[in-house]
Amino acid sequence: MDLYKSTIEKLESRNVKIEEIAELVMFLQKAYIEDLTMEESIQTVKDVLSKREVQHAVLTGIFLDEATEKNLVPEPLYSVINKDAGLYGVDETLALAIVNVYGSIGLTNFGYIDRLKPGLINKVDELGKDSSVCNTFLDDLVGAIAAAAASKIAHTSEKK
Amino acid sequence: MDLYKSTIEKLESRNVKIEEIAELVMFLQKAYIEDLTMEESIQTVKDVLSKREVQHAVLTGIFLDEATEKNLVPEPLYSVINKDAGLYGVDETLALAIVNVYGSIGLTNFGYIDRLKPGLINKVDELGKDSSVCNTFLDDLVGAIAAAAASKIAHTSEKK
Amino acid sequence: MDLYKSTIEKLESRNVKIEEIAELVMFLQKAYIEDLTMEESIQTVKDVLSKREVQHAVLTGIFLDEATEKNLVPEPLYSVINKDAGLYGVDETLALAIVNVYGSIGLTNFGYIDRLKPGLINKVDELGKDSSVCNTFLDDLVGAIAAAAASKIAHTSEKK
Amino acid sequence: MDLYKSTIEKLESRNVKIEEIAELVMFLQKAYIEDLTMEESIQTVKDVLSKREVQHAVLTGIFLDEATEKNLVPEPLYSVINKDAGLYGVDETLALAIVNVYGSIGLTNFGYIDRLKPGLINKVDELGKDSSVCNTFLDDLVGAIAAAAASKIAHTSEKK
Repeated sequence: MDLYKSTIEKLESRNVKIEEIAELVMFLQKAYIEDLTMEESIQTVKDVLSKREVQHAVLTGIFLDEATEKNLVPEPLYSVINKDAGLYGVDETLALAIVNVYGSIGLTNFGYIDRLKPGLINKVDELGKDSSVCNTFLDDLVGAIAAAAASKIAHTSEKK
Repeated sequence: MDLYKSTIEKLESRNVKIEEIAELVMFLQKAYIEDLTMEESIQTVKDVLSKREVQHAVLTGIFLDEATEKNLVPEPLYSVINKDAGLYGVDETLALAIVNVYGSIGLTNFGYIDRLKPGLINKVDELGKDSSVCNTFLDDLVGAIAAAAASKIAHTSEKK
Repeated sequence: MDLYKSTIEKLESRNVKIEEIAELVMFLQKAYIEDLTMEESIQTVKDVLSKREVQHAVLTGIFLDEATEKNLVPEPLYSVINKDAGLYGVDETLALAIVNVYGSIGLTNFGYIDRLKPGLINKVDELGKDSSVCNTFLDDLVGAIAAAAASKIAHTSEKK
Repeated sequence: MDLYKSTIEKLESRNVKIEEIAELVMFLQKAYIEDLTMEESIQTVKDVLSKREVQHAVLTGIFLDEATEKNLVPEPLYSVINKDAGLYGVDETLALAIVNVYGSIGLTNFGYIDRLKPGLINKVDELGKDSSVCNTFLDDLVGAIAAAAASKIAHTSEKK
């Protein structure tokens, strides 16, 4: 049971590539760390995804999205998740568990890209608008992984 | 779509009665507030359950338990949830979202009953040991509702 | 000992007016709730500030800013807070306690304005650049109060 | 500016020894990991204390305790912290930031020892009853460090 491999595969099956998350990290950190490379960003995203807490949150969130798509979720929860009701906060709660892995400094970055929706997050969001697709959790999970990776880079950068 | 009614019914279908949660509140607060009545405890549990954030967390957590029972969750997540793997923290994460509704003072009470397992929590835990039942989320949800209610009583009590 | 009054006064003594926080709320919610009025925004900010959890976080954060200004904080903590070191996350941690009062849906709004720095947050940030002023906590506290108020408005709006 | 060394020294100046925190870890984990040694516990506590997020929370919390003792905190905050008012949750909030470093599985352990008060936590609590001493933050910080260390041991243990 390789949780790391399963997590990567599950993300890919939902059209999310590690490289695209790494681009979000570049978007967040390029202004602060000029010499940040895509290579380093990709490695850091992989480091984040190797954390047990992150794997559990990602697998659970994507399961909830897929169960909603497959009509396995009973009402009234089905409608709440499917409409990504503005008041449903469980997606943000799972995202927070990911962000927290590298401390609270990631909070700001998470909120920033979650609302600005650059690159991959916009793509995930648009895909979710198809009536057969539910990405209620996925966009928050992806933003949280990028924010956590940005925090890790900030921590590492300071030690240099 | 009445989320409050659905939440109560869902808890009852999992063998959890409001009165039993109220007993946990009595267990937590009796030492501090001598004249606390069962009636007040029950009302406070109902107040907690009328919060949207709480309803969402409870319905999502119980859905995850039931989906696990029905074998709807794919591996490797299935085994992680079904065994209530010591390292799976999504149940505590959802519980925290409930506790936080009345502030961080509920954290201690949550951890305390979650590990001591008085009354209802022990019952839920024992039921979960049956191979056909999964209560991975339910015991944490119930402990969190009781802890949140205890916090609300502490807040109210101070104002008197 | 009126904590509400003290909190308002303390914010004003740091050049933060309720009206300016309400403008941040308008900035966050105007796109979603067209008929939101300044009056309603102001009232909601006052509601947020009447929560005990919020008062405690605001008073503690501002005390830490003022203690830093007055050179009461010993090294190495002094330098960490005074430089608003990118890795110091206690300010975000206190802010999160405020945001959480109305659930995790406020997380995104908090991160968004904390990094975009509209209106008051930019003002607080600029004031903090003066060598005699420390606003390390204040900008996060203000953003968190606005984000919490926006969440409350979203909750109330849905019930209408 | 060595934050690790400062954090250890500050804890010692408040009568908290690494060994005593390690004893709390033994108390929490001995039932689950039979061959856990004091040596491993001590090393894990040191690992926890080497995290930047933990150092910041510990130094900030102890500063608040000491500032309260020295009468540097203005009213009404002074009375709230000095009495360790049941409704003051900033101490738990800082503790949570420490616990979260190894994920939400530490929440339960934190609440459990914070309320049961074994060994060192009882000592810190008793010392705080002296009118010249304020340990409002210290007991939560110490419990959180032990809970985080227990989580780290659980994570490591699984990999063996």
